[in-house]
Amino acid sequence: MTGWVVIAGLGPGAEGLITPEVSAALDQATDIVGYIPYVRRVAPRAGLVLHESDNRVELDRARHALEMARAGRRVVVVSSGDPGVFAMASAVFEAVEEGPEIWRALDIRVLPGITAMLAAAARAGAPLGHDFCAINLSDNLKPWAVIDRRLRLAIEADFAMAFYNPRSKARPDGFGMVLDLLRQCCAPDRVIIFARAVSTAEENLQICRLEQARPEMADMRTVVLVGSSATRIIERAGQPFVYTPRSVPA
Amino acid sequence: MTGWVVIAGLGPGAEGLITPEVSAALDQATDIVGYIPYVRRVAPRAGLVLHESDNRVELDRARHALEMARAGRRVVVVSSGDPGVFAMASAVFEAVEEGPEIWRALDIRVLPGITAMLAAAARAGAPLGHDFCAINLSDNLKPWAVIDRRLRLAIEADFAMAFYNPRSKARPDGFGMVLDLLRQCCAPDRVIIFARAVSTAEENLQICRLEQARPEMADMRTVVLVGSSATRIIERAGQPFVYTPRSVPA
Repeated sequence: MTGWVVIAGLGPGAEGLITPEVSAALDQATDIVGYIPYVRRVAPRAGLVLHESDNRVELDRARHALEMARAGRRVVVVSSGDPGVFAMASAVFEAVEEGPEIWRALDIRVLPGITAMLAAAARAGAPLGHDFCAINLSDNLKPWAVIDRRLRLAIEADFAMAFYNPRSKARPDGFGMVLDLLRQCCAPDRVIIFARAVSTAEENLQICRLEQARPEMADMRTVVLVGSSATRIIERAGQPFVYTPRSVPA
Repeated sequence: MTGWVVIAGLGPGAEGLITPEVSAALDQATDIVGYIPYVRRVAPRAGLVLHESDNRVELDRARHALEMARAGRRVVVVSSGDPGVFAMASAVFEAVEEGPEIWRALDIRVLPGITAMLAAAARAGAPLGHDFCAINLSDNLKPWAVIDRRLRLAIEADFAMAFYNPRSKARPDGFGMVLDLLRQCCAPDRVIIFARAVSTAEENLQICRLEQARPEMADMRTVVLVGSSATRIIERAGQPFVYTPRSVPA
C-alpha cells in the first residue's frame, strides 16, 4: 500500500461548503488526524481511524500524520476552513523540513477549502470586494509588536481587513487594543462585521460601525471583517448589504 | 414565482472544486448570467437560459440579473473563483445601491467559492500560511498610484502577497513595474510563484526566486504569489514545497 498525506479544508461548517475533492479524499482515507472538533465533523465508518488531538499540538499532529503515511496509511489532516490559512498546512511543511529526509519523498497534497473570511464576506455581501488582507490576531506564535505594526500599515494602505482568532479566553485583551488602534486611525463610521460560526446552527452576524464595536462581540469562533474607508452599507428591511466598491476614483 | 439572484463562485476550474451549495443553486436556476468563459462552464439543460456577456460590462450584467429576478426569474450570476474576490459580487451590490428602491427588497445571496490564490497556494504547499494580502494589479478601476502605494506598504508589513490580474494584453507593462518595485524592496531570493489556470488542463506552476522572475511569466490566467521574507522552499525530487512558517520569532 502506498501511503499519502492530504491536508484538507472542511470549510466553515456546512456540509454544502465541503468540496467534492475533499469528500473524495475523506472517502479514501484510512486515518483522519486533527483538532478534536474538526475530526468530529468526519462521519465514522468501518476501517477509518479517527485521531483527535488538542489545540496547540500542531507539530506533533503533523509528525504523526507523516509517520503514518510513511508506513503506508492514507491520512487526511483536517482543518476548518482552508488548510493554508492559519491552519494545518504550514505545520505539516514545517515538520517535513525539520524531519527525516525520507518525508520529503512522501505524496503530500493540500486541498483548498472555503476559508472563514470568504464565507463571512459572502453572508454580508461583498465587504472584501477590493484589495484586502488577512491577519491572525493571536500572539501565541508572534510578538504583539508584529501584529500592531501590520495593523498600522494595513490601515495606512486602506485595505479591507479580515481578522482571524480575534479573541479567546486565554487572550481576552488583545482585541480591545486592536479596536483602540482602529479608533485612533479610522473614522468612527468605519464598517465592521462580526461573523460567528458562519454556516453552522450557531451562526450570528453583527454588522455595525466602529464606534459601536465592543471587544465582547468577538470570541474564538468569530472572524472579524473591517471595511476599507470606501466600504458601504446598503440599508434595507432586514440585514443590510455591505460591499466595498471595485473602483477607487482618481 | 418568487425570483432571486445568487452570486456564485465556480472555483478555479475543476468540477471537484465546486461546492455542493453552488451546484444546487445552478440546478434550481432559470437563468445564468456572466462573462462568456464562466457561463460556458455551466452545463446547458432544458429550461435554463444562458446569458453570456463580455468582459468590462459588469454593471450592465448585474442590472440585467436584478431586473430578471424582479420579474420572478431565478438567476445565478457566475464568477470564477470566489464571487467576493475581484469578481461579480461587488458589481451587483453597486447596481443595487444605484438602482431602484425595489431592488433592495430582492432575495440576493452570495455563495462563496475556492478563490484562485487559495487554489494556487494549495498546489505550492502553504505560501499564504501566515498573514497575507490580496491585491488586484489591474489599473482599469483604480489609479496606478494606489497600487504602487499599497504594494510598498504591504512589503513593509512583510505580508505574503497574492496578485490578481497581474498582466493582460491591454496592460502589458504594469507587472514589470511591480517586479522592479519588489526588487528594490526585497531580497533577490524572495520566493515567487506563478500559478496559471490551476486545476484546469492548462495548469502550470512555476516556483522561483525574485531574481529569476520575468514579466512574461504572468498573463491573464495567472495568479502570482509572493512570499513574505520568511517564506521557505523545501527542495525535493520533483516540484519543491513552499511554505510560510506560522511563527515570527520575537
